Formats: sequence, structure tokens, C-alpha cells
Amino acid sequence: MSKEMAKTTVQQQQILKQIQTIFTEQLPFHQLLQLQIRRFDINAVEVVVEMRPELIGNPMHQILHGGVTATLLDIAGGMVAFAGVIERHPEADWPTIQKRLANLGTIDMRVDYLRPGRGNQFIASGQVLRTGNKVAVVRTELHNEDGQQIASGTGTYLVG
Amino acid sequence: MSKEMAKTTVQQQQILKQIQTIFTEQLPFHQLLQLQIRRFDINAVEVVVEMRPELIGNPMHQILHGGVTATLLDIAGGMVAFAGVIERHPEADWPTIQKRLANLGTIDMRVDYLRPGRGNQFIASGQVLRTGNKVAVVRTELHNEDGQQIASGTGTYLVG
Amino acid sequence: MSKEMAKTTVQQQQILKQIQTIFTEQLPFHQLLQLQIRRFDINAVEVVVEMRPELIGNPMHQILHGGVTATLLDIAGGMVAFAGVIERHPEADWPTIQKRLANLGTIDMRVDYLRPGRGNQFIASGQVLRTGNKVAVVRTELHNEDGQQIASGTGTYLVG
Amino acid sequence: MSKEMAKTTVQQQQILKQIQTIFTEQLPFHQLLQLQIRRFDINAVEVVVEMRPELIGNPMHQILHGGVTATLLDIAGGMVAFAGVIERHPEADWPTIQKRLANLGTIDMRVDYLRPGRGNQFIASGQVLRTGNKVAVVRTELHNEDGQQIASGTGTYLVG
Repeated sequence: MSKEMAKTTVQQQQILKQIQTIFTEQLPFHQLLQLQIRRFDINAVEVVVEMRPELIGNPMHQILHGGVTATLLDIAGGMVAFAGVIERHPEADWPTIQKRLANLGTIDMRVDYLRPGRGNQFIASGQVLRTGNKVAVVRTELHNEDGQQIASGTGTYLVG
Repeated sequence: MSKEMAKTTVQQQQILKQIQTIFTEQLPFHQLLQLQIRRFDINAVEVVVEMRPELIGNPMHQILHGGVTATLLDIAGGMVAFAGVIERHPEADWPTIQKRLANLGTIDMRVDYLRPGRGNQFIASGQVLRTGNKVAVVRTELHNEDGQQIASGTGTYLVG
Repeated sequence: MSKEMAKTTVQQQQILKQIQTIFTEQLPFHQLLQLQIRRFDINAVEVVVEMRPELIGNPMHQILHGGVTATLLDIAGGMVAFAGVIERHPEADWPTIQKRLANLGTIDMRVDYLRPGRGNQFIASGQVLRTGNKVAVVRTELHNEDGQQIASGTGTYLVG
Repeated sequence: MSKEMAKTTVQQQQILKQIQTIFTEQLPFHQLLQLQIRRFDINAVEVVVEMRPELIGNPMHQILHGGVTATLLDIAGGMVAFAGVIERHPEADWPTIQKRLANLGTIDMRVDYLRPGRGNQFIASGQVLRTGNKVAVVRTELHNEDGQQIASGTGTYLVG
């Protein structure tokens, strides 16, 4: 068990697990993309998709569609923002958390496309820049399996 | 024939038609989303998707996934930016245009999520704010079939 | 009296006037820039600066500094966002409004520099894209005295 | 002498020095703000202002005006982008560099206001995210003298 996970209560860990399940199994668009949540704890998230023909945006260059990039960064950002909510409310039970989750929303997002989306696997991650009771700001990144950074993002999320 | 279309040459109209075909039939991710290009001329673009379960991002609220919104705005923005290239090069033939199309790319994009994505049909459109030989800036909008604005965007595109 | 102003109460008009005075006379950085608020009502704002040597950002091109552009768009956006607060609370008295004004803040802003900042006078204006109890999104523009658009912006503001 | 500076030629160091002088002594708006360039080499830039009454944006909270924040991030971003130009052209002489400097321009910028601008000194810095022959993308940050991050930014610059 990592040092960070040690700081979370059993209830928080169950909630994180439940949200991870919702994001992979109950969100239709995530299933269309076949995305996986490889990691989701208080400190980090990793949203992953394997490259496949359906995700290509430029047949001449065989690269990931910029819309997939934006989608992955938005999801990673929202999850990181919501991890902050869970962290600040260790006492909150699932119904309380569920109500807040229903209201989680992206206010705005910027995506910078740094390199062509080449690779076999794409991993989106993020970290909180600012968090408050109403609004969280998250910086996100997309890398391929070789660690090359494909894109960078900043998103503002409504969290309360 | 509209006043605007009258200004374009036959060659430009053929090129616009060809790009419209590529964007709907040859781009795998566009086909996964089942998106249509309802209009594409020098002055306007309309990128359309019909709502269906696979595009839902929030099962509690049955609304369009924010990633689909970002994707539609990015595509509309890129097409508007590229229409500007076609407009400024009335003499360019298809091989020349094709080479530039291969290099068309989004540099960065901002998306503002204004209202929950409710509706049966979503239409992305855009207009050029600035265009140059290298870079174009485009403002985009997403509306539903009732004319309600769902999102607003600004994108910077590499066009040369 | 314009049709729009007719919809505001006398109290709202006094509050708008008072804020206009604060923004021109009590904000040190606004005085350093010598900016004027030429119009501020429920429907519109015009923030104006006259070009002068101190505002030049590029001695080779004699154009307005991009920081001045960003500042003008940020101020216009904040005022437009706050006009929305005043509009939705016609009953609120000055102490109530003053408390909300103290908490008005920019969450994030995008600026697009469309044309070099040439001109004798620069006018920033804006319009609300979305407004809620907590957050407002505003689109802004900067024009010179000839009506040429110099820049475009989008800002997200905390309004409650 | 740091490891990084060792990699630059004498000519590059002279050019960097010259640009630093221009940015502090020949740009009127920089002098109005009384900003200093504390560091400018291939790897880093530090743009600094001391807090003073003229830079206050909110008389109730005595904090730095958001326009000053945006200005500092824009300047730091532009300088970092231009350091990339100098790095990639070790052979370029001053007239060549001067011509490119005249064309350096911000295409767009996002600013995230993370914390109220409290402090006695504000330091803007940045790092290149992507650089090309035409366009560079730079991430920027503003900290106060205690190391607290006030704001975060991303800017896209025309460099060629």
C-alpha cells in the first residue's frame, strides 16, 4: 500500500473504487472508446486507451483524433477534480458523494496539441492546480506508451 | 445558388465537396461518432450528430459527453479554417490542396460548456476570427436542434 | 432613455453608477492606465483607453502592449459578469452588492490576439455567454476607434 | 557558470543580454510597470515586479490586478519562446535575430488565477512545451516571494 493510499479511509477507498467502476462500465461514451481507468486514488488518475483504427483522425498520418485527446484530458481532469472532493470530505458517505458526482461538470477546458498522436497506448493524467468548494482547476497531460507527451490541458470544473 | 457560392470557382466547389466526402467517409473516428457534414462552403460549415445512447456522458442526466462536444467543435473549427485556405487560393488544384490538408492541425482549443448537452441533434458551426498564411483562429458554437447553445469554442489552427 | 435602461430600477441604476465610479476612481491600476468606463448598464459595457507612449509594447511597431489588451478584456468581462448579478437581484441594496463585488474574481481567461494593436483609442466590450449563481462566462472584444477588432477573449468569473 | 549557460556561444549570450536590456529599458509599458528581468538565458526567464499601490486591482483586498498578472505571464512566455529561437540558431547574428524579434507575437494565451495576488514581489517564469519553426507553446507561472503560486498560464507564440 502506497504512502498516499494510507492516508485515505476505507470508506474513501470504496468510493474511489465505485467511481472507477462507474466511469468504465456505466458511461456509454467511455465504452465506445473502450477506455480503462488504470489508476484512481486521491493523488493520481490514469485514463488509458489502446490505439485502434476507429480512433484515427488523419488517415494520411495514422494518428489519434484530436477529439479523443480532448476527451481523455477532460475525463482525467474531472476525475482529478473529484478526487479532491473526496479527499476534503473523508466523512461523506456514498449517497452524499453520488449527489456531488451528479453535479460534477466541466466549465471550460484548454487543450494544447504538442505532438502528433502516434503510439499504441495513450495515457491521460492530471494534477490539481487549485481547489475550492465550488471550482477546481486541473492541469492534464496525455502521453503515449513511450512517455512522449502528446498534449497538455487545463480545465476548470464545477465541483460543488 | 447563394450569393456566397457564386463567388467560388467550379474547382473550389469540387475541392470543398471532396473534403466533405473525406471528412464523412474516410475518417474512422468520424464514422464511429456517425457524424455528418450538412454544409461546407467558403462561408459556413455545419457538422451534425444525432443523439444516441453511445454518446451519453452522464447516465444520471442523459446528456451528451463533453468529449463529443469538444470533438465536434474541433472538427468544425478545422473545416472553417481550411475553407479560408481554399478561399485564398482559388487557383490551387487538388494535389496542392491535399498537401495542405495533410498538414492542417489544431494548435490549441478552448471549450466553454455553457448548458447541459440535451437534445436529439447537435450542430457545430464556426467562423474565422483571423486568418493568415500560417495560423487561423476560429470561433465555434454547438447548438441543439431547438437552437439552444450548448457550448462555445475558440481554436487556433496551423494552416500552412 | 434606452429601452434596456427602462427595465432597470432606480436602485439598480444608482448601483451601476457607483460601480462605474469605483472602477475609474478607486482602482489604482485603472488610474495608472488612465482608463475610462464610457458605458456601464445591464446590457453593455465599454472600457476605453487612449493610446499614449506608456502603453506601447513594441517600439519597432508602435503597437499596444498585449498586457494592456488582456487587462482591458479582463475588466470588461468582469463588469459584464457583474452586471448580470445586478440584473438578477433587482432588490439587492448597496451593502449586499458591495459584498458580492468584493468577491468578484476572474477564474480564467483566454485572449486571442487577432491584429496588431494600432489606433488612437481602444474600446473593450463584452457579452454574457452563460450566467449562474456561482460562475459566469463572458465573451469580450477589443476594437480600435475605426471599428477594427484587435483581440477577442473569453473569461470565466466567480460571481457568488 | 551553470551547466546550461556553458552550452551557449558567446554570441548567444550577448544576444540574450541585449534582449534583456531592450525588455527593461526600451519597452514603455514595461517601464510603467517598473518590471525587471532578473534572469534570461536559454533555459529560464524570471520577470519580476515589486508590489506597489499603482498595481492594486482590488482596494478592498489590496491584491495585484489580474491585468498585471496576465501581462507578466505574457512577457515571460514570449521571452521563453524567443529563447528557443536563439537556441536553435546559434549562428544567427544580431540583425537576423532582431528581425525575428520584431515579428515575435502572442497568438493566444490562457491565464488561470489560482490564488489572490498577495505579496511584496511577483516572479513570472516559464518553460517551453513545444517549439517549432513557426509556433511555440509555453507554460508560465506567477509566484510571490514566498514561493506561493498566484497564477498559471499557457501561451501560443508566433516565432517565425
